[in-house]
Amino acid sequence: MNKKHNFSAGPSILPQEVFRQAADAVLDFNGSGLSILEVSHRSKDFVAVMEEARALSLDLMGLTGQGYQALFLQGGASMEFLRIPYNFMGMQGKAAYLDTGTWAAAAIKEAKVFGHTEIIASSKESNYNFIPKDYTIPADADYFHCTSNNTIFGTQMKSFPDSPVPMVCDMSSDIFSRQIDFSKFDLIYAGAQKNMGPAGVTLVVVKEDALGETGRKIPSILDYKQHIDKESMYNTPSVFAVYTSLLTLRWLNENGGIGAMEQRNNAKAELLYNEIDRNPLFTGTAATEDRSLMNATFVLNDIAHTENFDKMWKEAGISGLTGHRSVGGYRASMYNAMPIESVQVLVDVMKRLEITG
Amino acid sequence: MNKKHNFSAGPSILPQEVFRQAADAVLDFNGSGLSILEVSHRSKDFVAVMEEARALSLDLMGLTGQGYQALFLQGGASMEFLRIPYNFMGMQGKAAYLDTGTWAAAAIKEAKVFGHTEIIASSKESNYNFIPKDYTIPADADYFHCTSNNTIFGTQMKSFPDSPVPMVCDMSSDIFSRQIDFSKFDLIYAGAQKNMGPAGVTLVVVKEDALGETGRKIPSILDYKQHIDKESMYNTPSVFAVYTSLLTLRWLNENGGIGAMEQRNNAKAELLYNEIDRNPLFTGTAATEDRSLMNATFVLNDIAHTENFDKMWKEAGISGLTGHRSVGGYRASMYNAMPIESVQVLVDVMKRLEITG
Repeated sequence: MNKKHNFSAGPSILPQEVFRQAADAVLDFNGSGLSILEVSHRSKDFVAVMEEARALSLDLMGLTGQGYQALFLQGGASMEFLRIPYNFMGMQGKAAYLDTGTWAAAAIKEAKVFGHTEIIASSKESNYNFIPKDYTIPADADYFHCTSNNTIFGTQMKSFPDSPVPMVCDMSSDIFSRQIDFSKFDLIYAGAQKNMGPAGVTLVVVKEDALGETGRKIPSILDYKQHIDKESMYNTPSVFAVYTSLLTLRWLNENGGIGAMEQRNNAKAELLYNEIDRNPLFTGTAATEDRSLMNATFVLNDIAHTENFDKMWKEAGISGLTGHRSVGGYRASMYNAMPIESVQVLVDVMKRLEITG
Repeated sequence: MNKKHNFSAGPSILPQEVFRQAADAVLDFNGSGLSILEVSHRSKDFVAVMEEARALSLDLMGLTGQGYQALFLQGGASMEFLRIPYNFMGMQGKAAYLDTGTWAAAAIKEAKVFGHTEIIASSKESNYNFIPKDYTIPADADYFHCTSNNTIFGTQMKSFPDSPVPMVCDMSSDIFSRQIDFSKFDLIYAGAQKNMGPAGVTLVVVKEDALGETGRKIPSILDYKQHIDKESMYNTPSVFAVYTSLLTLRWLNENGGIGAMEQRNNAKAELLYNEIDRNPLFTGTAATEDRSLMNATFVLNDIAHTENFDKMWKEAGISGLTGHRSVGGYRASMYNAMPIESVQVLVDVMKRLEITG
């Protein structure tokens, strides 16, 4: 097997040992003689998987015993765009959103179906190349929603406001990648398919006492309280995706937890951004102070180099480097599981391009 | 690996070659050097998977070119309990539901959140041990909803009414198991985790011209039209579950399609029900004419045999035979992928119990 240096924005790289363990479980789960794909979600072995995944998520975030519950749901972040107003927006209420990218805007669109939704700051006019910082969260909003990392534009919130109202955050593309005071948030959600697992499962971490305030009649499948009461088994969960997420969380825990990941991610980002800034052929597209540690976006200053560069990185075994059509150029996604050696391969290609043209 | 005879009701047995192919793809998908868990859902190889899965689903059902679209969504049948009224129930409209079991009742509960929902017939009073047949579908309903197979109670609709209004059917537990005139339905849905794939993906087959009639503002993630327009990629799909479903659909196609499955399923069910009826130690719990080909429910006439019987089937390598708490006793689920040899192992145990007591 000729493994690639996978810079894909998501679904994206996971630890190699997680792939091996997941493949083994597809053939025989826990020595049961059954595939993980054919075991009942009510079986003792899988209930233990779900409970460990829920507990380990809270533990890694330092939220154990703080009144939070972790859930593994289906539908991706896009489903949470709907669940959040259902669970947090009052019948006559309003919501405050920070508009920092394509996914933030998609969350806003769905909130508007429900009620009054204010965009309190936006960087849309400059193609989302920075994070707005000068805004006030209305004290009469039911909640404030932000997006911690903007995969497409390569920007990341470096700090979070002290919100006067419940704070909800989409952390799909940087969860478990850096130390944050997670207790500032009433709800955190993340599609697994970047730092945590395969596509098909979403982690939701919610403060229990923030629920039940809206007066809305909530359909069961959208009701966080129902999912909490049923211990994340309201209906059949995405068994394999939950199991593979647990394997990734265990890997993360055994490799030093979020603190160690942050150090690795800082080193990788520094290596790449230093080259982007040093190399006269390239320019970064995001405001320097808001640069994402997860997704570095950059362009060639002279598009005449495109053919050569594309040929060179592909020959070096790199995949998934093409930028999103909203920005163009290149995007190097460097999630937790990416080794610094892969980033070095990319940097070496950039240096060679400078010499050979 | 000591493979079990897996009679689990779901998630449940899939073909052994599907497990092997799925495990291979977790290590290396299509010789790409990437795991199926880390490839972009927008990659050429995965888009081809999604398109083949959608086309093959329609083809197996004989619905190609009949105005239907196949979608692979997230959330399980429980999410469709919500999507269906959102997409089919008018603002002042009403829905008609057939109440044949726990899952039908759950669908009814969610429809009631939206509007007037009539239960036009129910077998609840007799613990759902038969399928009501004497009912009239109101011509002024927006749609009629039924459940083709009741996993928990072991009953199955052997025929479907000629509905004067759009007919919607939950086929989660018997899809692709028998020949049906699928063109009678406006919407068919099925959680994959019985006959089609692993948990975490739902097949929805919908007649396009039945949509857009309600006047409701539908949240994007719940809007079938959005999913059709985006070719089942409105948001990141459950990549691995879709791929494994495709592997199962290919297996089904290569092994003779639905017609051949029905023959095998008839043979398996006949073998087991004959033994239930012949063996004086056992009694079937479902009305004979409504017995499911997928899930056979039965009890011991004398619970004094329980310990022996449980020991014997476990020693024979059988798993997942314990009945649902709503019925008690035993439930043998015999989905497409179960070989008749496994059913014979169970029948042999039942015969041995008769001799040894």
